[in-house]
Amino acid sequence: MRRDVPTLVARAREGDARSVARLITLVENGDPALPEVAATLAPYAGRAQVVGLTGSPGVGKSTTTNELVKALRATGRRVGVLAVDPSSPFTGGAILGDRVRMQEHTLDPGVYIRSMSSRGQLGGLSAATPQAVRVLEGAGCEVILVETVGVGQAEVEIATLADTTLVLLAPGMGDAIQAVKAGVLEIADVFVINKADRPGADATYRDIQGMLGLGERLAGDWRPQVVRATAVRGEGIDDVVAAIEKHRAWLESTGKLTARRERRAAVEVEAIALGALRARIGDLKHGTALSTLATAVAAGELDPYAAAEELVKGL
Amino acid sequence: MRRDVPTLVARAREGDARSVARLITLVENGDPALPEVAATLAPYAGRAQVVGLTGSPGVGKSTTTNELVKALRATGRRVGVLAVDPSSPFTGGAILGDRVRMQEHTLDPGVYIRSMSSRGQLGGLSAATPQAVRVLEGAGCEVILVETVGVGQAEVEIATLADTTLVLLAPGMGDAIQAVKAGVLEIADVFVINKADRPGADATYRDIQGMLGLGERLAGDWRPQVVRATAVRGEGIDDVVAAIEKHRAWLESTGKLTARRERRAAVEVEAIALGALRARIGDLKHGTALSTLATAVAAGELDPYAAAEELVKGL
Repeated sequence: MRRDVPTLVARAREGDARSVARLITLVENGDPALPEVAATLAPYAGRAQVVGLTGSPGVGKSTTTNELVKALRATGRRVGVLAVDPSSPFTGGAILGDRVRMQEHTLDPGVYIRSMSSRGQLGGLSAATPQAVRVLEGAGCEVILVETVGVGQAEVEIATLADTTLVLLAPGMGDAIQAVKAGVLEIADVFVINKADRPGADATYRDIQGMLGLGERLAGDWRPQVVRATAVRGEGIDDVVAAIEKHRAWLESTGKLTARRERRAAVEVEAIALGALRARIGDLKHGTALSTLATAVAAGELDPYAAAEELVKGL
Repeated sequence: MRRDVPTLVARAREGDARSVARLITLVENGDPALPEVAATLAPYAGRAQVVGLTGSPGVGKSTTTNELVKALRATGRRVGVLAVDPSSPFTGGAILGDRVRMQEHTLDPGVYIRSMSSRGQLGGLSAATPQAVRVLEGAGCEVILVETVGVGQAEVEIATLADTTLVLLAPGMGDAIQAVKAGVLEIADVFVINKADRPGADATYRDIQGMLGLGERLAGDWRPQVVRATAVRGEGIDDVVAAIEKHRAWLESTGKLTARRERRAAVEVEAIALGALRARIGDLKHGTALSTLATAVAAGELDPYAAAEELVKGL
């Protein structure tokens, strides 16, 4: 039985986890009810602090997220976690039990944890994740952690989505160099050097500090914080929380929080508009227009720009 | 002084590296001449074999690419290399001297090497890279290696773009497990276990074989090859080339080459069409429409779907 949207939202606002789950499933599936969900949730926009968390595979993202949840819960805040797997467009979700990994929080009604797959959709993270964030905001989460695997487009998207972006590194993975290569220097508000008890942690710390020193920064710009942690033992997590709060205070005092959120909304609105246009392209000539043109392009009979122009004209 | 497009293409076809470079720059910059470039290049579409090469940072992609170039050149084929950095939208390109790293080939007129940044543009790789591939095809490259950092959306895009996709792994990076998590099992035509002289290589090999055994595969489907290599010493590269050629032969004998290329063309055409629509959205109301709507959305006065609908109506 399908509940109506206002009832689902009302229940989610009362903290009913099943209603939250249903709303996020609507979001994930691109349900036709999405515009109504969005309209019902609009008044609660912007209430939560959104913290992005990214890094290479194996760097300890899940463990760090788990520890951050603990630390934030200890301060009494309601916490939402979205674990987004941008690289799994085919399987439709994280395989290895992400939903299970944070079991210790499952009995805590102040924590809502959800794995999502972006399923290779247009815009990747930017399409579904902001709506899921809105659901969690509507459900009263005060901090929302959005965790995703870097390196790649997803990292950039998370930086657009989040108020504060954490980039995790670990010693001995060549990460400090790769970090620059991957452009994360530009998106990180806080660097967390995890596994700080391992050899090479100090070198990684110095590398990152050195690179931050090289970058151009205008007066009044945020200087990314570099924090050492050993998440698996819970060490340094308070410092990570402190860095997040320091960044939040800076965003508010400079007016950049509003600017970031307006930019986020612009990305979101544009992604929805392009998604709608893409659906219309897919429907052209009963769904045959694109494949007919593609066949001609693959055969060298038509160039892709001429083909695209024909599609756009057909809308 | 700007040359006209037909002259540039004619010179590129004669193997003039500077003309090739200029054409790719036009592509990278989204030059207004792009449709003309595409129209001029259309007849040469589909002549080259496109090989994608991806893997986590530090897995040895550059070294492997370099060795593959050597091996392919030894057979007399003209080779193009596109090193795409999808994660560097801000800096506009690979920083650490990718352009320099393959210096040993710079005097060989049978090799064209180019680093590109996808600059966070809509569709990432899918927007600019196919056009760059077309330029190299037009210039007579018989094999085009497209190298990009995984994990992420870029990997999926490279699989769409390539005839054959190589996924590089290295022992001791937890990669075999991560590979499944990241969905690369679905996109890899050939797994290359690089650094095969290191401890753990056999375990990685067995892990991958085991996972391949678990996956469902229909009769007649391609079973991904798993090849061991130590690229830094040039070992195993011939096996990689053999696996690529085996896959190519399979694609041709099953008719899947044409199917893959039509799918590729569809992605390309759609990306161009959406890019054009995005530009039109950006121009609405002298460029103010989106930001005005975004401000309302960020303030909770409007929901993003209603805002998107307004944009689409305005087109």
